[in-house]
Amino acid sequence: MTTEDNAASTPGARMAAEIAEQPARFAELVDNRGDIATVAADIAAKPPRFVLLAARGSSNHAAMYAKYLFEVLLGLPVGLASPSVTTLYGAEQDMTGVLLVTVSQSGGSPDLLQFTESARRRGARTLVLTNTPGSPLTEASDDTIHIRAGEERAVAATKSYSNTLLALYLLVDAIRGGDAEHVREIAGTAERTLGQCADDVRQTVARYRFAGRVVTTARGYSYPSAAEAALKLAETSYLAVRAYSGADLLHGPVAAIDADTAVLTLTSEGKGAQAMHQVLNTVASRGADILAIGSDAERVPASTRIALTATAEEVAPLIEILPVQQLALELALARGENPDQPRGLAKVTKTY
Amino acid sequence: MTTEDNAASTPGARMAAEIAEQPARFAELVDNRGDIATVAADIAAKPPRFVLLAARGSSNHAAMYAKYLFEVLLGLPVGLASPSVTTLYGAEQDMTGVLLVTVSQSGGSPDLLQFTESARRRGARTLVLTNTPGSPLTEASDDTIHIRAGEERAVAATKSYSNTLLALYLLVDAIRGGDAEHVREIAGTAERTLGQCADDVRQTVARYRFAGRVVTTARGYSYPSAAEAALKLAETSYLAVRAYSGADLLHGPVAAIDADTAVLTLTSEGKGAQAMHQVLNTVASRGADILAIGSDAERVPASTRIALTATAEEVAPLIEILPVQQLALELALARGENPDQPRGLAKVTKTY
Repeated sequence: MTTEDNAASTPGARMAAEIAEQPARFAELVDNRGDIATVAADIAAKPPRFVLLAARGSSNHAAMYAKYLFEVLLGLPVGLASPSVTTLYGAEQDMTGVLLVTVSQSGGSPDLLQFTESARRRGARTLVLTNTPGSPLTEASDDTIHIRAGEERAVAATKSYSNTLLALYLLVDAIRGGDAEHVREIAGTAERTLGQCADDVRQTVARYRFAGRVVTTARGYSYPSAAEAALKLAETSYLAVRAYSGADLLHGPVAAIDADTAVLTLTSEGKGAQAMHQVLNTVASRGADILAIGSDAERVPASTRIALTATAEEVAPLIEILPVQQLALELALARGENPDQPRGLAKVTKTY
Repeated sequence: MTTEDNAASTPGARMAAEIAEQPARFAELVDNRGDIATVAADIAAKPPRFVLLAARGSSNHAAMYAKYLFEVLLGLPVGLASPSVTTLYGAEQDMTGVLLVTVSQSGGSPDLLQFTESARRRGARTLVLTNTPGSPLTEASDDTIHIRAGEERAVAATKSYSNTLLALYLLVDAIRGGDAEHVREIAGTAERTLGQCADDVRQTVARYRFAGRVVTTARGYSYPSAAEAALKLAETSYLAVRAYSGADLLHGPVAAIDADTAVLTLTSEGKGAQAMHQVLNTVASRGADILAIGSDAERVPASTRIALTATAEEVAPLIEILPVQQLALELALARGENPDQPRGLAKVTKTY
């Protein structure tokens, strides 16, 4: 048995190591942003008319974040692609003027590959963000951005998710002519956040040890964080967790929220958090237990808060996901699970 | 007290009446499809390059259905719009060549209105599908399609949802030059389905009376039905219900499925249902209790089945939602709730 195998036999050791590695991975990607700027310059020289994003699982939450970036910062209309229209139904979409951005940690998902090949044949410019240069999706795409997360061994994605967010931000920022102003110090902010949140997270775990029903919610840039939080808690702690945008929550699902519901909300200073105040007042009036994470956490009704350092709103998702990952890890361990290897999950899921 | 008020005082009476009304509403809309064909001809004469769909709640599930129709039957790239990029962040997207289709039963949602006005100013062609001609969204849009569902008084949307699906199908079918071939008999099919399913639904209710954790899942055209089923059960019976596309389910959330999970799947004959076989075999191997609804229900692993008459796959969502509505109604009543007026929900939700 090697040292590596010993490490793997301690439940959660891999996930803990990969969470801790994120500040260094952020720094590496920011230092190498020149590679991303080259791709960005090509895109800026011939701007697309429409952006399509294609991804699955955690990568799909990164794609949701990218949708806000492309729409708000670049003013481009964006759609999240449904690969099944091609892989199941053989749709032949006209992709002239479309930039297809595929997000795939492994670069090997068969349905994303088939969708990318088809889109490229029909006129799309294709770009893949991946942690695996040389993978089939990089072969099938016009351009590749390497997210530089290093090998990820825990099944629950952490550093590959956060570095994908950072790569997407660097891409969009470079397309609009920026030079990474809001993320120059992101590694340091991440390092301090991980250190400062550890105690808060442990206290929160005690409170949610027996939670049965969890809802996550946010608006704007933080909504993808709510979706990723729901997935992380579901796949490591087997909780019944559902994510809603704050706007959708009021359109029906709020009826199912009561004193037995734990509500996790991401509220980072900015317009998204401001729009959550009304939502959270309604949720609080129904007796739900609210856990607020973010730089705006002190300003919303909540029974538990994990306050974070403020950043520019559009990069807050890179920071606010860190205590969520710590919570997923610690909660799984408290419940006697091994978050490195959830029951019945494989690291790479092949859907067709 | 009027007769109307008496009817409303019997829990579920309104929702039951509106469910029963659907075959007649289908027939009325098919008979008046000439209005939709006029809008379709205009769109076909100057085809858009992209389609954006904007909606909230049940209407958003109708929009998801429309996404498949536009992509598969017309070969157009489609995105689901996030109105918050405009209403919260003031994004100024270039909408040249975009067809924006807004779906709103009430036609009065402030964020959809603001998004539509902004999109129109920036070059989009705007079309609203609504049950309320003369509403603010019809004023703000280039074209209006009246879904002809009649006044809907129960808070849980039923006939407005199914008639929106039918209107969207008639629109896309007319754009491609069809003449409603697959829905000419839809009213009769709906009538028979409602009659034949009543007993099956009652038996199913007994089985799910005490279900705590419910997952709904499907692929392709039926995926929006899974999303609508989750919303309907959450808002009338206060269940913790989460919808997943069959593909996403295997990317993590399947870890949270065990013998305590009730899984509701929509499997109507076609490519979507075929792709669900692998998913449902995995779900069944984890011990989950599966309820299969649809014309393919007999061919998937399940403990309970509600078999439906086969239709063309692309119109199956109009039929498969009917037993789901009956189930939401009967389950709410069995649990002592009033599905006509769920706790804390208003018929029209105003989000900004």
